[in-house]
Amino acid sequence: MSEFVFLFAVHNHQPVGNFRSVFEKAFDDCYRPFLQAVRKHPSLKLTLHFSGPLWEYMLEKEKECWDAVQDMVGKGQAELLGGGFYEPILSIIPEEDRIGQVELMNRFLEEHFKKSPRGAWLTERVWEPNLPKSLAKAGIEYTLLDEEHFHYAGIKNIHTSYITEDEGCPLRLFPIDKKLRYLIPFRGLEEIRNYFTEIAGKGGAAILGDDGEKFGLWPGTHKWVYEEGWLKTFLVFLEKEGIRTLTYSEYLDANPPSGRVYLPPASYEEMMEWVLEPEELEAFKTLKSGVPDESRRFLRGGYFRDFLIKYRESNHLHKRMLLVSREVTRQRNEDARRLLYKGQGNDPFWHGVFGGLYLPHLREAAYYHLLEAEKKLVLKPGWEVEDFDLDGSKEFLHRDEIFNILLKPSFGGGIIEVDYKPLSRNLSDVLARRKESYHQTPEEKKGEGRSIHELAKEIPAQDRKFLRYDWHPRFSALDHFLHPLTTQEDFQQMSYGEQGDFVNQEYFPTMEKKSLVLDREGTVWIGDFQARIFIRKKITAEKEGFRVAYELENRSDRDIRLFFGSEWNFSLFPGEAEFSKNKALFLMGKLVFEPDHPHEIWHFPLETLSQSEEGYDIIRQGICILPVWKFSLAKHERFFTKINILRKNDDR
Amino acid sequence: MSEFVFLFAVHNHQPVGNFRSVFEKAFDDCYRPFLQAVRKHPSLKLTLHFSGPLWEYMLEKEKECWDAVQDMVGKGQAELLGGGFYEPILSIIPEEDRIGQVELMNRFLEEHFKKSPRGAWLTERVWEPNLPKSLAKAGIEYTLLDEEHFHYAGIKNIHTSYITEDEGCPLRLFPIDKKLRYLIPFRGLEEIRNYFTEIAGKGGAAILGDDGEKFGLWPGTHKWVYEEGWLKTFLVFLEKEGIRTLTYSEYLDANPPSGRVYLPPASYEEMMEWVLEPEELEAFKTLKSGVPDESRRFLRGGYFRDFLIKYRESNHLHKRMLLVSREVTRQRNEDARRLLYKGQGNDPFWHGVFGGLYLPHLREAAYYHLLEAEKKLVLKPGWEVEDFDLDGSKEFLHRDEIFNILLKPSFGGGIIEVDYKPLSRNLSDVLARRKESYHQTPEEKKGEGRSIHELAKEIPAQDRKFLRYDWHPRFSALDHFLHPLTTQEDFQQMSYGEQGDFVNQEYFPTMEKKSLVLDREGTVWIGDFQARIFIRKKITAEKEGFRVAYELENRSDRDIRLFFGSEWNFSLFPGEAEFSKNKALFLMGKLVFEPDHPHEIWHFPLETLSQSEEGYDIIRQGICILPVWKFSLAKHERFFTKINILRKNDDR
Repeated sequence: MSEFVFLFAVHNHQPVGNFRSVFEKAFDDCYRPFLQAVRKHPSLKLTLHFSGPLWEYMLEKEKECWDAVQDMVGKGQAELLGGGFYEPILSIIPEEDRIGQVELMNRFLEEHFKKSPRGAWLTERVWEPNLPKSLAKAGIEYTLLDEEHFHYAGIKNIHTSYITEDEGCPLRLFPIDKKLRYLIPFRGLEEIRNYFTEIAGKGGAAILGDDGEKFGLWPGTHKWVYEEGWLKTFLVFLEKEGIRTLTYSEYLDANPPSGRVYLPPASYEEMMEWVLEPEELEAFKTLKSGVPDESRRFLRGGYFRDFLIKYRESNHLHKRMLLVSREVTRQRNEDARRLLYKGQGNDPFWHGVFGGLYLPHLREAAYYHLLEAEKKLVLKPGWEVEDFDLDGSKEFLHRDEIFNILLKPSFGGGIIEVDYKPLSRNLSDVLARRKESYHQTPEEKKGEGRSIHELAKEIPAQDRKFLRYDWHPRFSALDHFLHPLTTQEDFQQMSYGEQGDFVNQEYFPTMEKKSLVLDREGTVWIGDFQARIFIRKKITAEKEGFRVAYELENRSDRDIRLFFGSEWNFSLFPGEAEFSKNKALFLMGKLVFEPDHPHEIWHFPLETLSQSEEGYDIIRQGICILPVWKFSLAKHERFFTKINILRKNDDR
Repeated sequence: MSEFVFLFAVHNHQPVGNFRSVFEKAFDDCYRPFLQAVRKHPSLKLTLHFSGPLWEYMLEKEKECWDAVQDMVGKGQAELLGGGFYEPILSIIPEEDRIGQVELMNRFLEEHFKKSPRGAWLTERVWEPNLPKSLAKAGIEYTLLDEEHFHYAGIKNIHTSYITEDEGCPLRLFPIDKKLRYLIPFRGLEEIRNYFTEIAGKGGAAILGDDGEKFGLWPGTHKWVYEEGWLKTFLVFLEKEGIRTLTYSEYLDANPPSGRVYLPPASYEEMMEWVLEPEELEAFKTLKSGVPDESRRFLRGGYFRDFLIKYRESNHLHKRMLLVSREVTRQRNEDARRLLYKGQGNDPFWHGVFGGLYLPHLREAAYYHLLEAEKKLVLKPGWEVEDFDLDGSKEFLHRDEIFNILLKPSFGGGIIEVDYKPLSRNLSDVLARRKESYHQTPEEKKGEGRSIHELAKEIPAQDRKFLRYDWHPRFSALDHFLHPLTTQEDFQQMSYGEQGDFVNQEYFPTMEKKSLVLDREGTVWIGDFQARIFIRKKITAEKEGFRVAYELENRSDRDIRLFFGSEWNFSLFPGEAEFSKNKALFLMGKLVFEPDHPHEIWHFPLETLSQSEEGYDIIRQGICILPVWKFSLAKHERFFTKINILRKNDDR
């Protein structure tokens, strides 16, 4: 068979919460010129996916693009793909939401384009074997996966479609050709023609589904694709060579599946490497390089859900989302449901070559929508005790009109979330500094050196501090005992010796009237002496704010001198926090952070260094505040202090 | 920490449909002496699992064992594990059945032992990431998996427990120590003591969960474990050394999980190799042998669901089960539900070192219960058209009081299932002869030879014929055109040249009144000449039985001579089929298989060679019947014949 068949799907997405300017640029440089170009070749068929945030934006702001899509769909030139409306990773959200997100997209497309989609774009192609059931329940007949998914099942022919099922629900699957992903739009027609010829020679179809942003938004592509005419040439080539472009549904109706498959969880190859810890990635790449092609099917990188292990912050967002979802489902509140869905978008849950989780505005948007969803629900004020993050230990959650405060006795008795409800802000949404594989030098990768960092070579000396890593999560109300000579700079750079064992250890929780009391007796090293220190933290929430009252007792038989600090981390940005000697004002004075007579208040920005499509970003994730106290305690003597987080009048 | 902690779980199972004699032997040689032995050491705690078939048998026949378990549970010496009652692979049955099977076990244990189980034995430890949700819905708090599952997630410490979740439903997980699986009960105390010491030295717990049949039923173990006193010595050792045995729940209540994990689908290492095709297994083993231990986590064998791909017969049973399950769920029929569950037992769905799928009595029992379940349901008689096996093409199912007939136009227009309802027998339940990895010689494995087979060396020459393989599935009403010189022996040995292209190709289906008509025009090679032949098969079911009426037309411009045969395969066993020149009587004359004036009726047993715990088995899977006709056809002439399958009076 020598017919050239080409299935061309383009997936366009911008996350909830991305800057308006990015949306504008994406349409100007990419989506609009792409649509304009293909519309001029009405004989060429294609399959289009826009995620919900783009549809909503187009409807409001991009009439030209909207009309172009309407026209192409109306004429049968374009088929539209469905999928989770706000582009969630389907496998990590509850089944009910999974179906709901896909149905929301179905309804949107039915309403505006008069057709329910038959296929779904699977976010980041993150596959789990139970998805056919959810997709079938939402009326979806097919989806696109990467060729890797099929290789893992021992499938060699990727130029056709397959069928799978779960619990008796069938789903057709198309393998996306990785080579085509690298050829289009990056290489010349000759190479593309050769590959098309090779595929047609095998009697197969060329199957492509890829990010639309490659056509103008990725660095350098606008010039290449439009100004230098790659796309125009390519479209003319498709027409002139008589390449038969089909929508996915046309192909599906004309061709039975080539066989039955059962695919293990997977995504594209790069994704399954990004999820690995740096040392693991190293080991994996070494292994992979030595394995012959025919045995590659037996090699597996990581598993998408492990992003929740790799990044505590992703896990926190995930478990918080599950908590909201549970209540939305229980209360069957449709307004809250849509807000929940907006908080489920995939981008802030992971990190690869794009910022993702590292971008505070994306995380903030997710929490914003989750907190807005909660506002639509009936939730009991006061304390609730439950294993909210599903780690086997109980957390304590206090809700009132202004704040949610979530505490984790099992880890330093820390505060892991403070939500300021008037703004629907999770003020604890900071990201720790951690080692990333791209922080490594080629030397390090070979185990031949440890001190110089790959990116450090490219960045000025003063930025190398971003390659220091946090040894504990950036919770709040974490109790530090410092060496008397420790400076703020030492603390900031994580180059100090922790003298106590309180930061990441367990506190014993009890309720005392309306307060949560957290107790721990631990050790503080004072030179060679191991002092027994008891800490009691009492957390009380009242109308004007909340308070952490400290009681420290020297349970040693010796007088001691202590340098104590209570660490707080807030996702506050330049201009949102002002400091004076004894307190800090947050959010234009809406909140006051007021420690009781501290020796000093240390504070510094939390900044990370992460890779992005253009190189690397240094991103301010928030601020760390450490009020410190220096005091002596006779044996069995106690020290009292407290920290207030108070709400002020807006006009203060 | 130097405390020796040992968690000891024993899993006992016999499949639905296994011979009564096997149950008796299992209790005599294994379960009863094991229980008697451990009961004598009441200070030793253990965790026990019996599958539903064993509980039902004990209740009826094994009062002594039953009382022993009652006593041990009552005294707190033993904790009982739940799980799917009839020991199904949870991931391949519908979620509703999954929960139902686990709840059935919960209710059984509550009724008889006054306690609902907190843990579940996971059949064959076949894990998929969505299981926590199903298990949590059934009230299960923990399960046991293999250490391999954890290695794949990069976990190194297997001497502790972990926590996972799906959709917010938590589940505690225990890794089963593979080394302990090999030490107990096969090695001496010195080795075991050393390993316990090693584990305790790391502050961990020794965690074992394994087949109880190792303690007396596996070949040679009865003598070693009881007569030579291994078990007694081991139990005394546990007591004397002060090893702290705990039930799994006791451990769970005393120890928080060591961390959060997300595990990809997996089972024990051997299982994930058995599922691979022979050539793949070879490649995998070669790869594995060259990979350093620290990178083994990235190597993955097969995926359990691929047994459905590897063995068409397993897939057929699976899809048939799903069909029954769908109706049971729709009709909410509780009697049918229990029968369905009995038809979901794992054993006939796969094959490893035990017979499993290769054992006709286990497959027969599964179909028996599925068909009995259908008898409790209201199912419309007549034709139904649907993609029953979920391969993307429609099948045709005819139901009446006596038969179900299921046809597959897309594959030779073959009959893929004939159920004889008075006996609840699937008469089409035969197994094709296929290449298994254990058929290979060591030379073959290295690619240095092809003709001598490993097992062939051990078996007499006349049995080497079992190492011939079928090139198509053993359906019925498959249309063969043979070379004039083909003999029955050639056909049986698959050493003949198929002259037509009808056996595995598509037929076009239409309904004609109450008959299904299947048409195909294909090619028959007659020497160098490619004759165009049209076949019409008309399938009619009536009160007295069903009939396949053949019409063959020579659409060539030349007279030809044909040697035509219609292949039928039945799962009938010695004494169940008697042949005369023109017909065959099945099932003591209850059915007559009657071709219309055949030249001959060829028939021969279908036999496979498979490995089993004791070596290899040659198993009669059923019989193949090929009525043949020899005739000449002038150009455009037609030939008519038919095959009747008729029901006779029982007293005939």
